[in-house]
Amino acid sequence: MSKLVIVGSCAFDAIETPFGKTDKIIGGASPYIGLAASHFKNVSPAIVTVVGEDFPQEYLDFLSERGINTEGIEIVKGGKTFFWSGKYHNDMNSRDTLATELNVLADFSPVVPTNYKDAEIVMLGNLQPSVQLNVIEQMNNPKLVILDTMNFWMDIALEELKTTLKKVNVITINDEEARQLSGEYSLVTAAQKIHEMGPQYVVIKKGEHGALLFHNDEMFYAPALPLAEVFDPTGAGDTFAGGFAGFLAKSGNISFENMKNALIYGSCLASFTVEKFGTERLAELTGDQVKQRLHQFKQLTQFDIELN
Amino acid sequence: MSKLVIVGSCAFDAIETPFGKTDKIIGGASPYIGLAASHFKNVSPAIVTVVGEDFPQEYLDFLSERGINTEGIEIVKGGKTFFWSGKYHNDMNSRDTLATELNVLADFSPVVPTNYKDAEIVMLGNLQPSVQLNVIEQMNNPKLVILDTMNFWMDIALEELKTTLKKVNVITINDEEARQLSGEYSLVTAAQKIHEMGPQYVVIKKGEHGALLFHNDEMFYAPALPLAEVFDPTGAGDTFAGGFAGFLAKSGNISFENMKNALIYGSCLASFTVEKFGTERLAELTGDQVKQRLHQFKQLTQFDIELN
Repeated sequence: MSKLVIVGSCAFDAIETPFGKTDKIIGGASPYIGLAASHFKNVSPAIVTVVGEDFPQEYLDFLSERGINTEGIEIVKGGKTFFWSGKYHNDMNSRDTLATELNVLADFSPVVPTNYKDAEIVMLGNLQPSVQLNVIEQMNNPKLVILDTMNFWMDIALEELKTTLKKVNVITINDEEARQLSGEYSLVTAAQKIHEMGPQYVVIKKGEHGALLFHNDEMFYAPALPLAEVFDPTGAGDTFAGGFAGFLAKSGNISFENMKNALIYGSCLASFTVEKFGTERLAELTGDQVKQRLHQFKQLTQFDIELN
Repeated sequence: MSKLVIVGSCAFDAIETPFGKTDKIIGGASPYIGLAASHFKNVSPAIVTVVGEDFPQEYLDFLSERGINTEGIEIVKGGKTFFWSGKYHNDMNSRDTLATELNVLADFSPVVPTNYKDAEIVMLGNLQPSVQLNVIEQMNNPKLVILDTMNFWMDIALEELKTTLKKVNVITINDEEARQLSGEYSLVTAAQKIHEMGPQYVVIKKGEHGALLFHNDEMFYAPALPLAEVFDPTGAGDTFAGGFAGFLAKSGNISFENMKNALIYGSCLASFTVEKFGTERLAELTGDQVKQRLHQFKQLTQFDIELN
């Protein structure tokens, strides 16, 4: 088994879309990343996160049953789980945050389970950069550190983020964040500037427009699958990251050529997440369904111009 | 030789970008489409358009020298050529139109040269839909009619556009226009609705985010090449259309699988156009440069996940 350490928030989400609304369901970055990675049979993902005493045992069981190690999920006695609530607009591309209650996440001090300190791949979901750095420092020389972050940390903790980035191999951010972090409008130039901050690989997520992978002078583009209907976009980016990290852990090959495949896997798994509320679709996903959709990605992107 | 009929505006353009500005240079849809199509050695493109007496002979020679038939370019005695002037903003994604003087284009009555009425492929650049329809009616049963249009005609001549669309095999429009024409936000659903209006193939252009091709339940996605610098976006969409039509004319194969290749060719040629002002880069382009860039498109999009 290939160990994969996943750090990220764990939350109750209450989501409203034009199609309906949910009560408090399991959310946050780490469940999406973990569920996506758990799709790969020879990968053993461990989630490192914190929840409150209000977090139901059935949610922990739900993760365990899918092969996710939960030893690193700290349960704070008397504490309340991080809560997020949001409402998507009709175009599904913008949303209003209705509530963000950090609760136990505010004092999160991650502890990587001893048995996972030798994992070769670490996936750091969006969190305070100093917490992400703390996790890196607990690891025994991992082969690949992947970090997701967002504009919020660029606004309030830029130097901390830059310090953390020096220890990171792959960064995943969206296009606007790449522009903010680099001060460059062109994504090609932005990726070059971000390379110089540390990460040898830069993944720029463009939502419905797919994702770009940059490495030195090389580029790869994974489209998002065009869908007739997006039901709930929550967790798509985290699923993408989990599919990317999980595929690399599965194959044990972190070459640029194999990262292309990892990017396609990430985009493929993310295309399922948006079909239902929260983690519902991801949790019920079968291998055959994934294979069929990967076939769609091939149809969508492969062409046969002869270059001789 | 494979004949290709191209109808579209021919203009003087005066362009201002953050990198500089031009005097009046050759512009309009038909020169870009023609120059892109002229890249294919066994294709004989003919431009059908109208210019004024002020249109320099050297511009006509410029087109002829590149193998473009100019018999269908009407020169109106005492008339002035269509003039457009625009200024791009710093992000290159938006522009202000400073001047639009239709001049002789206002009364354009296209005449397809007799020798080109048997062309198998017709590329109708953005023009009044009734003018586009007039061209279709002059042709002897073409195999493929490709039409480009824009929101302007949806605003002021929607019924006329719908009448023309019934005679069209391939439509190329941008994402916002596809949404406007169909009343659907999802591009997948929008393409289905537009299919029902006539075109069996729907190409949705997303600018820097590439282009999608829809046919029944099939989809293909051609990315735009991410560039460090876009110098002047003018004509990129028309170059794309010209590369698409030119490749299909060259290969004589209008299957969906081959349209994938045509879309990549279109995207490839468009990536050159934006590197310099106006038609400058397209006019000096060599076959080796195109081949090299097609190779970049392969690197950018091809992956090797085994599906067994």
